[in-house]
Amino acid sequence: MWSNELTEKLGIKYPIIQAPMAGGITTTELVAAVSNEGALGMIGAGYMTPSSLSKQIKAVKEKTRNPFAVNLFVPVPYAASKGEVEDAYKVLKPYREKLGLGEEEIAAPEYERDVQTFQDSIEVIVEEEVAICSFTFSLPDQRVIERLKEAGVVLIGTATTVEEAKAVEKSGMDMVVVQGSEAGGHRGHFLRKNEESMIGLMSLIPQAVDHVAIPVIAAGGIADGRGAKAVHVLGGAAVQIGTAFLTCRESGANPAQKEAILRTGEEQMVMTRAFSGKWARGIQNQFIHEMSDFQVDVPAFPIQNALTKDIRRAASQQMNTEYMSLWSGQSPRMAKEQTVRELIHSITDHNYFTCTHKR
Amino acid sequence: MWSNELTEKLGIKYPIIQAPMAGGITTTELVAAVSNEGALGMIGAGYMTPSSLSKQIKAVKEKTRNPFAVNLFVPVPYAASKGEVEDAYKVLKPYREKLGLGEEEIAAPEYERDVQTFQDSIEVIVEEEVAICSFTFSLPDQRVIERLKEAGVVLIGTATTVEEAKAVEKSGMDMVVVQGSEAGGHRGHFLRKNEESMIGLMSLIPQAVDHVAIPVIAAGGIADGRGAKAVHVLGGAAVQIGTAFLTCRESGANPAQKEAILRTGEEQMVMTRAFSGKWARGIQNQFIHEMSDFQVDVPAFPIQNALTKDIRRAASQQMNTEYMSLWSGQSPRMAKEQTVRELIHSITDHNYFTCTHKR
Repeated sequence: MWSNELTEKLGIKYPIIQAPMAGGITTTELVAAVSNEGALGMIGAGYMTPSSLSKQIKAVKEKTRNPFAVNLFVPVPYAASKGEVEDAYKVLKPYREKLGLGEEEIAAPEYERDVQTFQDSIEVIVEEEVAICSFTFSLPDQRVIERLKEAGVVLIGTATTVEEAKAVEKSGMDMVVVQGSEAGGHRGHFLRKNEESMIGLMSLIPQAVDHVAIPVIAAGGIADGRGAKAVHVLGGAAVQIGTAFLTCRESGANPAQKEAILRTGEEQMVMTRAFSGKWARGIQNQFIHEMSDFQVDVPAFPIQNALTKDIRRAASQQMNTEYMSLWSGQSPRMAKEQTVRELIHSITDHNYFTCTHKR
Repeated sequence: MWSNELTEKLGIKYPIIQAPMAGGITTTELVAAVSNEGALGMIGAGYMTPSSLSKQIKAVKEKTRNPFAVNLFVPVPYAASKGEVEDAYKVLKPYREKLGLGEEEIAAPEYERDVQTFQDSIEVIVEEEVAICSFTFSLPDQRVIERLKEAGVVLIGTATTVEEAKAVEKSGMDMVVVQGSEAGGHRGHFLRKNEESMIGLMSLIPQAVDHVAIPVIAAGGIADGRGAKAVHVLGGAAVQIGTAFLTCRESGANPAQKEAILRTGEEQMVMTRAFSGKWARGIQNQFIHEMSDFQVDVPAFPIQNALTKDIRRAASQQMNTEYMSLWSGQSPRMAKEQTVRELIHSITDHNYFTCTHKR
């Protein structure tokens, strides 16, 4: 049987979670389609305002009566001097010119404002009675956790090491996503340097399972029934799938990004801080390549993210993959252009049931 | 059933291969114990002279009648000017002093001599009728492959990406080890930069299996029955296990290295070129830390390896783990102080059989 403690707690049929991919990928169509198929759709709300989050939650509710989740980025303190921001802007100027962007004053993000947005988003989740909330980049403080638990929201934290998984458990969360080094997009490490957080799932899942009692959800490189089954035998309670949902018809990813993933190999997926100031995995392109040649120490997330926003948007509009952030995990060869239904059925039709696993 | 095309071809009972760990770890006791338990023992002959290889093969034969394998490093051209070698030696001087080593003329390795050693080792394998030979760091040339195939030796190549796995297959080898980013010790990449070769097994196994027809052996982070089963459901034909055999009683690893692995976490396993000039994974220590702070571009393998040889040996003798190369994969929390028999039984007793996998 597919069902376990996790599926019961989340109220879903299959232990398959659509990864929160922020920045327009998790459309209402994608989230609702995933939940309607018996898996868990998730709104990647990391860059959303509370009011647009509220709107999307209402829209998803109109398309599905099944549970879905919201993912938030936990704000982590950051600061950069005016000079550092100006220097980082200078490095980006040639790219602005190449894409036809003029000079513009870029409003630097402010930590206090981010914290307010985060708090307001928590209130939206409570008001809208969202069943499940997941977090990345850090742990929310205890008041937030208590507020959500009192409201009956199931909480999922994100970890990249055994230590971090233990910290998630200790914080009172109900489940933990362990993000393997295979994963695309931003890294969720918060206790260690990125270098120390790049643990492959073959190592990370069993070691995490051995050290925490809460259900472990595995993320990174899983794209079909083989991966789902492997996670199961390693002791994981569910899979969280990103890239394979990103290339689905219902996702809001730029068609140029979908195509780039479908025609590339796993060796093209590199780690970079160039786009956002936070380590993330995506397809090697000119921007990543040149920025690493500069050896510049770009400002921390989300400052660099704000500085490259125009560039990423213009490149997207121009379908210029050399300057877009083409986030992807290490299994692009398994990604397909397909519907959410086809992807989920390809996993659930796999001979999963023939494998009876005793713990 | 455990048996498959691979176990039949290798003449072994269980699809479990003891990874070739060069430098004294794969003692005759270790190799023979592994083969006697129905798995495949392997002599890590990367640093051995043909005559000592010949001696160990004879010794292993006295302790087991089951098949065992030999692993060789394929020489890859390298060169360094006298000045570069002197500069690299200078950086290492403080470590020599700290360990009580005097100034000494260090004979730089020579590629032509390495090639001769490699050819002579091939002849030893043929003469001694070793059943199985595996290769790392590159592909041997066609004459070597033909020579061994004519002698009936089963050949195994090592790859880190799908492209490399395809190259191994094209070269005429019988099987391919895919080395995941989880693996300890030296990286086996040969077509791409190391950065592009760090693919987690959750991504690497299914993508490799989809692109080659020869059996795929998975290496990296596998330490128990859960990992063996996960590899199986991902489509792999066998597992190659390093660290978990390294901490076994029969292994020749320094007790200080065994202890260091047994008391550490996966987040301590970093990548470094400092010891040998080739990227490898091991436990973070002072030597790795300081050498990365110097940001020195150490000479290529095996030049740097020759330059640090005295340091590694002296540190080993003094049980000083801060200056030893403590190679380990990303699953130290699963390593145990145990016998080979206990390790292999813990894998084969796992409820592996209840899982019937249709391809």
